[in-house]
Amino acid sequence: MDKLQKQIYFLNETDKLKNVIRHSLLTQDLRRENDAEHSWHICMYALILEEYAPEGCDILQSIKIMLVHDLVEIYAGDTYLYDEKGYLSKKQRETQAADKLFGLLDDEQAKYIRSLWDEFEENKTPSSNFANTLDRLQPIMLNYLSKGEKWLVNKVTKKDVLSRWESTAKNADKKIDTFLRNLLDECVQNGYLLP
Amino acid sequence: MDKLQKQIYFLNETDKLKNVIRHSLLTQDLRRENDAEHSWHICMYALILEEYAPEGCDILQSIKIMLVHDLVEIYAGDTYLYDEKGYLSKKQRETQAADKLFGLLDDEQAKYIRSLWDEFEENKTPSSNFANTLDRLQPIMLNYLSKGEKWLVNKVTKKDVLSRWESTAKNADKKIDTFLRNLLDECVQNGYLLP
Repeated sequence: MDKLQKQIYFLNETDKLKNVIRHSLLTQDLRRENDAEHSWHICMYALILEEYAPEGCDILQSIKIMLVHDLVEIYAGDTYLYDEKGYLSKKQRETQAADKLFGLLDDEQAKYIRSLWDEFEENKTPSSNFANTLDRLQPIMLNYLSKGEKWLVNKVTKKDVLSRWESTAKNADKKIDTFLRNLLDECVQNGYLLP
Repeated sequence: MDKLQKQIYFLNETDKLKNVIRHSLLTQDLRRENDAEHSWHICMYALILEEYAPEGCDILQSIKIMLVHDLVEIYAGDTYLYDEKGYLSKKQRETQAADKLFGLLDDEQAKYIRSLWDEFEENKTPSSNFANTLDRLQPIMLNYLSKGEKWLVNKVTKKDVLSRWESTAKNADKKIDTFLRNLLDECVQNGYLLP
C-alpha cells in the first residue's frame, strides 16, 4: 500500500471507535455514549471553553490530543473510571493496542499520532492538562444530566469523583474548578451521587 | 446566567447532535451514523490527511469549522445529499436553527461560532474547502465499505456522486481526487453504485 492507502485504511479502522461503548448516558434517549461521540464533544468543549485553558496551552495540540485520546480502546476496550480491577491491566492492554493501531500508518506518522496519545496519558503539558480536564468534566456533566443513574448503580461517591478530578485536573482554571465543585454538591443534594 | 453557565448550557444542548441520524452506515454493525460521530471522524481525517490540505489552509480553523459544521441540524434535521426537495428549504431551516442555537451563547461568542458555520457554508476559503472536501469524502468511504447499500436503495448514480464531489471539492488535492475517482470506478464495477 502507498502512504495514502495506509492513511485511508487507518481512517477506516478508526470507524470502530463509534462502537466502543462508554458508561455515560446521553441526554436525549439515555442510551450509552460511544467514544467517537465523546471525543467530538470534548473537542467542542475545548472550542467553547478555550478561554479557561491553562497558560501555555496550544489549543490545536489539545484538540489533536482529544481526537486520538481514546483510539486505543478500539482494541483495548473502555475501562470504567471507577473499575479498580480493570485499571490494573489498562496500561498493558492499551500499549499493545497502540502498537497495533498506530502501526497501520507509515512509521513517521505512526510516531506522531502515538506521541499525541502519550502526551495525553502523561498529562504533563498544559495542552494535555486541558484535554484531561475536559475528558473528566464532560462525563460528569452527562452524569448530572441523567440524574446520576450510572453513579448510583455503581455506588460512586462524591469523594470518588473528586479524587479523580483532583488528580487529573490539577491545573484546571479556578472558575471551572468552582463550577465543578458546586455541581457535585448539587448532585449530592439531589440524590444523584452518594455523599 | 453568567458567561460560563451559558457556555455549559450550550454544550449540554449540543449533546443532541448525537441523536441526529445520517444516511451513512457504519462498518461494524451497519447502523446509521450520527452527526457527532461523523464530525469527529472528519476531524480525524483532517489530522491524518493534513498534508493534502490546500495551500493557505489553517488546520486549526478547518477543524473548528468541522466541529461545528452540522450543529444546526440539531433543530433543522439532516438533509440527505441526494434529496433535491429537502435542499429547497435547507437554507431557511438551517439559518433559523443557527439563530436559535448559537444565540444561547454570549453575543461575541455566538458571532464567532456562527462565523465558523458561515465559512463552511460559503466554502470560499482554503480552510473551509478542506472541511468540505473531507465532509464529502468520509461518507463516500462509508458507502464503499457498506457495499453501497444506501446508494442502491436511493438509486444514486456515479454521476450524482461526482457532481456533488466536483462542486464541493474543487480545490481538493490531486492525489485525493484521483483516489476518489478510482474508488467510484471500483464501486460501479462491484455493483455498489449505478453507472
